Amino acid sequence: MTAIEKCRYLAGFSEQPGVITRTFLSAPMHGVHQTLREWMEPLGMRVWVDDAGNLHGHFPGIDDDAPCLLIGSHVDTVPNAGAFDGVLGVVLGIQLIEALIGHKMNFGIEVVAFSEEEGVRFGVPFLGSRALVGTLTAELLATEDKQGITMAQAIRDFGLQPENIRRAVVHSDRVLGYLEFHIEQGPILESRNVGLGLVTSIVGQSRYEVTFRGQANHAGTTPMNLRRDALAAAAEWIVKVEEVAKGQPGLVATVGRLEVLPGAGNVIAGEVRARLDVRHPDDYTRLHMAEVFLEAAQGIGKNRNIGVDVVTLMDAHSVACDTDLRNALKRALTTSGYEFHSMASGAGHDAMVMEQSVPVAMLFLRSPGGISHHPSETVLEEDVHAAVQVGLAFLEQLEMSHG
Amino acid sequence: MTAIEKCRYLAGFSEQPGVITRTFLSAPMHGVHQTLREWMEPLGMRVWVDDAGNLHGHFPGIDDDAPCLLIGSHVDTVPNAGAFDGVLGVVLGIQLIEALIGHKMNFGIEVVAFSEEEGVRFGVPFLGSRALVGTLTAELLATEDKQGITMAQAIRDFGLQPENIRRAVVHSDRVLGYLEFHIEQGPILESRNVGLGLVTSIVGQSRYEVTFRGQANHAGTTPMNLRRDALAAAAEWIVKVEEVAKGQPGLVATVGRLEVLPGAGNVIAGEVRARLDVRHPDDYTRLHMAEVFLEAAQGIGKNRNIGVDVVTLMDAHSVACDTDLRNALKRALTTSGYEFHSMASGAGHDAMVMEQSVPVAMLFLRSPGGISHHPSETVLEEDVHAAVQVGLAFLEQLEMSHG
Repeated sequence: MTAIEKCRYLAGFSEQPGVITRTFLSAPMHGVHQTLREWMEPLGMRVWVDDAGNLHGHFPGIDDDAPCLLIGSHVDTVPNAGAFDGVLGVVLGIQLIEALIGHKMNFGIEVVAFSEEEGVRFGVPFLGSRALVGTLTAELLATEDKQGITMAQAIRDFGLQPENIRRAVVHSDRVLGYLEFHIEQGPILESRNVGLGLVTSIVGQSRYEVTFRGQANHAGTTPMNLRRDALAAAAEWIVKVEEVAKGQPGLVATVGRLEVLPGAGNVIAGEVRARLDVRHPDDYTRLHMAEVFLEAAQGIGKNRNIGVDVVTLMDAHSVACDTDLRNALKRALTTSGYEFHSMASGAGHDAMVMEQSVPVAMLFLRSPGGISHHPSETVLEEDVHAAVQVGLAFLEQLEMSHG
Repeated sequence: MTAIEKCRYLAGFSEQPGVITRTFLSAPMHGVHQTLREWMEPLGMRVWVDDAGNLHGHFPGIDDDAPCLLIGSHVDTVPNAGAFDGVLGVVLGIQLIEALIGHKMNFGIEVVAFSEEEGVRFGVPFLGSRALVGTLTAELLATEDKQGITMAQAIRDFGLQPENIRRAVVHSDRVLGYLEFHIEQGPILESRNVGLGLVTSIVGQSRYEVTFRGQANHAGTTPMNLRRDALAAAAEWIVKVEEVAKGQPGLVATVGRLEVLPGAGNVIAGEVRARLDVRHPDDYTRLHMAEVFLEAAQGIGKNRNIGVDVVTLMDAHSVACDTDLRNALKRALTTSGYEFHSMASGAGHDAMVMEQSVPVAMLFLRSPGGISHHPSETVLEEDVHAAVQVGLAFLEQLEMSHG
């Protein structure tokens, strides 16, 4: 089976027939684990599942006790997902071991299939990688899903022991680093006609809820000059956010969710709740620009006699990939002869969490049409082939530097 | 009981304790009918309910067969309503008869309490007045409410015969005209510090659904210059609509409903559905300006490579109040010595439908705070008193012109 075939095969394990939906430790995850085990064990890998539901496949080095390189990504999905987001990073780890045909390096390789990254079931993302860096806390384990099942209970229902979750924590002195292959989930590589992306950092994110409070009123009987229209205020602000963001290289700012109340065609909007998402590789720039956006909202509100409330929902700093690992990956790309583009990741990834404990590196594969989180998400055969070649060259680089 | 006390008393007949909700022929409407009957009959009025559920109270003229003036409004409400919208117009009709203390005019007076105007139960407004002008069709009678009950069945359940609905149609040669007292439901009279409004016309309305079709995408991985953001396009348009409407006297244009899809904070909006409501006393201006707004949407869509679809939901022409009746009402206002403001009604009213068969006139009473369709909707004692005085003067005017 090719890597693409493997991804499509795993996509068959779904909570819903006909579409791909696989949330944290739902029943079809057993099928994924069984299949990964069947692919890994014949390659000489020792396979186990930790108590956060992460599957590990360890391929030892020449010295059984040698420290190891982690290669991984997540095997949960968003609802109605594509077949490659996350899963491809695990499958490519297996493909690399397969390509070694039993050849052992002077370090071990551990492929990790994280149980959760998307945050669908419990509203909190990165559950799998959190367990490896020791931040899957008792508080998180008490979180309930929509059925009122706690995370701890979900773990127990899957046949695991939440009380042993600390055993999943990596010993960072025994780990050389973490490598993640992932589809780009954006249009940049395709627009540059390049198959691979060398990730320099994962951008920081700020998220806010901005509420505009005007006065709901009759759309027919309230003259234009006596209105306090919360939607007109929000619209003016959305236009401003877009205009400012376009002028700042590397910045993305998005209002993607808007609730308009009362939301009737013949009633002037009294209240609008908007979500603002701001990302930039440089934390200072991100926070500065977020401030510019929020001040613009206040200014518009003031001019219109409309109240503006802001709640900060997220403030995550950017994460840089490790200089040494990134250089090794860059040399691997150069020696393999594939064109690549150095870029920041606009999306969060398990590497962002793993960086809290170990050095990380990431390689992006082009996303045709920039499409992800959608059934038509795909990846090109040639890019997968290139990624495996670059992965092998990266292992060689690591063997040299580790030797 | 004062008129205000009567309105508050009728508000007690509600589908829900503690709030005012009374939809077409719901059970509490029996209580309203019973009460109106108890108020009307002692004044020498003959009371009956037609087969659309409209209650009529006829106070004969000197000649029993004299043609009559209709005075009315509706006694249904929106959910969680105030006590005065509609109801006040019926109560003021009764107050006028009471003030006549048995004195008969040379024409009859018929107070009509329309069963339905708000369009809540069947999604179609003006059911009561439609019956009087003969447009409560078999097709409408077959409409179902949310419980699957047809309008015809609702009428039967109330104890009436839908097959006799044609009997409710007014003989326009026996009717002098239709007078409606109504709260303004807007801020204009209050902003001019005037208690009464002489309605010149009821504005025409255009309603559209405008859909912007862009491309949903990841808010983190899609650079600003590669986006087709449907919400940014809609926002640009909403700002434009407001700006243009402000420059056109008498025009109101509102986007009060907006659906943003998929509606997640970290996903660029792929589709936005907006409702546009445009009103102006002059039909040509309304249609011309609506075209300006829709062309602006197309232009914005073109610049952004975003599709724009438009569906026309409503195109109702403006309705002028009758010149003779309006002049009589104006003389009544002048002779009574109350300050008033001549104005178009931005909201639809039963008078709009009645105008299809008979001449109509309307008098507005100031809405404190411009508030309506809300429990805090109210009306001033002094304005109610003035309205009764003006009503009596109007009856005198009519007596003179009819004599």
